[in-house]
Amino acid sequence: MARETPAVITRRDVDYSAWYLDVITHADMVDDSPVRGCKVLKPHGYAVWEAMRDALDARFKATGHVNAYFPLFIPMSFLSKEAEHVEGFAKECAVVTHHRLRSVTGPDGKAAVEPDPESKLDEPLIVRPTSETIIWHMYGRWIDSWRDLPILINQWANVVRWEMKTRPFLRTTEFLWQEGHTAHATADEAVAETLQMLDVYAEVAEKVLAVPVIKGRKSARERFAGAVDTYTIEAFMQNGWALQAGTSHFLGQNFAKAFDVTFQSAAGVREHVWATSWGVSTRLVGAVVMTHSDDDGLVLPPAIAPIQVVIVPVYKDAEKDHVLTAARALADALRGRFRVRIDDREHLRPGPKYFEWERKGVPLRLELGPRDIAKGQAFAKLRIRSDKFSIALDGAADVVATLLDDMQAELLVRATAMRDARTYEVGSRAELARLLDETPGFFRVPWGGDDADEDALKEETRATLRCYPLDQPSVEGLTCPLTGKPAHAWAIFARAY
Amino acid sequence: MARETPAVITRRDVDYSAWYLDVITHADMVDDSPVRGCKVLKPHGYAVWEAMRDALDARFKATGHVNAYFPLFIPMSFLSKEAEHVEGFAKECAVVTHHRLRSVTGPDGKAAVEPDPESKLDEPLIVRPTSETIIWHMYGRWIDSWRDLPILINQWANVVRWEMKTRPFLRTTEFLWQEGHTAHATADEAVAETLQMLDVYAEVAEKVLAVPVIKGRKSARERFAGAVDTYTIEAFMQNGWALQAGTSHFLGQNFAKAFDVTFQSAAGVREHVWATSWGVSTRLVGAVVMTHSDDDGLVLPPAIAPIQVVIVPVYKDAEKDHVLTAARALADALRGRFRVRIDDREHLRPGPKYFEWERKGVPLRLELGPRDIAKGQAFAKLRIRSDKFSIALDGAADVVATLLDDMQAELLVRATAMRDARTYEVGSRAELARLLDETPGFFRVPWGGDDADEDALKEETRATLRCYPLDQPSVEGLTCPLTGKPAHAWAIFARAY
Repeated sequence: MARETPAVITRRDVDYSAWYLDVITHADMVDDSPVRGCKVLKPHGYAVWEAMRDALDARFKATGHVNAYFPLFIPMSFLSKEAEHVEGFAKECAVVTHHRLRSVTGPDGKAAVEPDPESKLDEPLIVRPTSETIIWHMYGRWIDSWRDLPILINQWANVVRWEMKTRPFLRTTEFLWQEGHTAHATADEAVAETLQMLDVYAEVAEKVLAVPVIKGRKSARERFAGAVDTYTIEAFMQNGWALQAGTSHFLGQNFAKAFDVTFQSAAGVREHVWATSWGVSTRLVGAVVMTHSDDDGLVLPPAIAPIQVVIVPVYKDAEKDHVLTAARALADALRGRFRVRIDDREHLRPGPKYFEWERKGVPLRLELGPRDIAKGQAFAKLRIRSDKFSIALDGAADVVATLLDDMQAELLVRATAMRDARTYEVGSRAELARLLDETPGFFRVPWGGDDADEDALKEETRATLRCYPLDQPSVEGLTCPLTGKPAHAWAIFARAY
Repeated sequence: MARETPAVITRRDVDYSAWYLDVITHADMVDDSPVRGCKVLKPHGYAVWEAMRDALDARFKATGHVNAYFPLFIPMSFLSKEAEHVEGFAKECAVVTHHRLRSVTGPDGKAAVEPDPESKLDEPLIVRPTSETIIWHMYGRWIDSWRDLPILINQWANVVRWEMKTRPFLRTTEFLWQEGHTAHATADEAVAETLQMLDVYAEVAEKVLAVPVIKGRKSARERFAGAVDTYTIEAFMQNGWALQAGTSHFLGQNFAKAFDVTFQSAAGVREHVWATSWGVSTRLVGAVVMTHSDDDGLVLPPAIAPIQVVIVPVYKDAEKDHVLTAARALADALRGRFRVRIDDREHLRPGPKYFEWERKGVPLRLELGPRDIAKGQAFAKLRIRSDKFSIALDGAADVVATLLDDMQAELLVRATAMRDARTYEVGSRAELARLLDETPGFFRVPWGGDDADEDALKEETRATLRCYPLDQPSVEGLTCPLTGKPAHAWAIFARAY
């Protein structure tokens, strides 16, 4: 079950998928679990998620949202109430059918347990794949008048989708996410909320994760099951594939109608409530890894690095106290402004320590030996540069701040340049197919196709319509190079995770 | 299913259980859900949990712990590996048996779904009631040498125990908690960790929640299933019952043996690893409600109140802009130091606003009208005092800080006094029985009984041995008033949630 981790990280250009798995394993972010499709988020992986969560949560609250918590279990019958929703989720649900185990003797003669037939539930429960149904059931209890609106609730939770093919962070049976669920008196207000949260996601992706994204609207084929419109932020991975990094849905009145949630308007009329939902997940961790990391291992943007600065004291036995004292003084000078760690492990030499922290993506390493101390300096190495340079111990915090800010900015510039260099405007279907084979990327197309054309293209090239970018120049007079039909909107096509 | 909420809060002395449900409902903290035994944590209830979580998480990290995340599902066979553990949890497990639904026509002729028999799992999965088994399975992969120890991991998660009788926050089928799981090279180190985390819990209970607790060790009868020793913090509720508010377990080598987790010691010997686990849950929210609230509704310690100060502007139409401007200036002066809200809802008069915020437990209310503004004052009302008084707008933040600090301190003093006043040293079993009937409380007893005596006493009086307090004066020469036997340790008995 567990894949053997090679001693060195596979190079990206040799095997991109193997590289990704090697990077997250060597960085000690994740491990296989005994449960099919579920991963253990180890401390170094979970800490990256925690940092993202805090950045998102602060922005949710700043835009007027509050957190709440709804049950993990959903009565099975709820799923059928919204026709498209059940279609989208019924095939990948974990189903709870019993509430007790009983003791038996196993085939090996040892004590074992089995589900107690007498504890069978009258109605099975679904482990939530998403919470629209149970939340709209509750909103039906809470909403009566326009005065009860809007409801602006977010939930941090685990969800389960029984995926057949999994990949750590990107697609797992259980994953962690947040799901916002809002209720509004008008369609306009709900659409504005949908787009506001898309902006929040894009801002966190670019400013915090240094991951450039394209904001756009999904085609009907790629829409959330039960949505009127799905908006997305699409990120570019180093192999030229797209990654859907977050979605925000305008749900219209679909769930309000399925759960019969109405309100009395200020004008005294009873109307169905308008809804949105929006979510990002631990998938974002995968997006960060795939965007920034290199053949030496993980690269993390300083804004979300669990350790931003590692100090490695370098000494012979006689100098130990002297050097450790100086290292601690340096750490004290940096703490409060940065997440700092001194690596004072005695059973490892400096070399293996450098190697370990590079693989774990620590943005800045400071080496400190007796000669550095004598000169009032530390030796610095940024994760994304190959040179080492000296910085003065006096006033080090300000220098570190600049170094980390520069690195954060540079990561976004690099990632944007990489994406833009592989964003194509092709002249024909053949050119698209050739580039997808040779150097895949984003294909910006004045699209003229319909649903059937979209299906056919996917079948033929495995590229999907990632989104209609919100930034839409006119397509008037343009012909779609992929279908030969008159273009109706600019679209991005790509292969995607 | 849903209990009707009366228009006024039932008085404590009339019906304590009804009072508790009324308080949390009127404070809008919780609602019934369509899933048996599961509650919805509404924003005002969840925010209290968030504040507790942040206080705990900071202390976990300060004592060297890191967070991680393990799967929700546990293979059924894992549960049987530790004999006492399966005994403790098998009877209240949610069991996942299928991973897909299929469409059927319901009895009413409508579209419905049912578990797809073809998706039946080879081995059922348990929804975690606690995570020792899956975590020790993983530790077996991670631990090989003394250099891998200690492991100091905490997890914030939801867990499920199929409880027959539930009460919001105190006992629900699903609840939120944290579970620390640590691995150590020696028994001494594990015991020290167990007691350290008990201290962390006690400190948060007293300093943050203003809930006084008694630290103690559980009797064998009340121990965690699989532990060598369970330590507890026991809190006193206003009806004289005890509430176990947090537990910290020394697990010995039980789980290491069940999952065969060994390490090579520095001396080169292979030994089983020593373990602890420790947890607190959303039950703490119930503890806070029951400790501090009164017949007017919720009372929250300022340290965890989602809103610490509410400003209610009081005006006639012509004065509106003037008063709102002043209210906003006051809020700006307080924000940053306090969690502040202006209640500028236009469809409510001040009276109903005061009433609502009292019921929701906001520690401090500031009323602001044109005459107050002219005098450079606001009218203040602390949730736990009946008088109103003026405070100067100039320098209001410092005054507010003092008021909230005083209230925080006073809540702990009040709760401690209430508990101490009802902590008895009884002379006989009859006296215990009489007091349990009339004015129940904590019974401090030089206990001489054995397991059978403990069972008999519980059967007879419904009082349980809450703990052997860590603070243990000598019992030499004392006779147990409940059994007539020579005392072996001081114990606390009480009825408990």
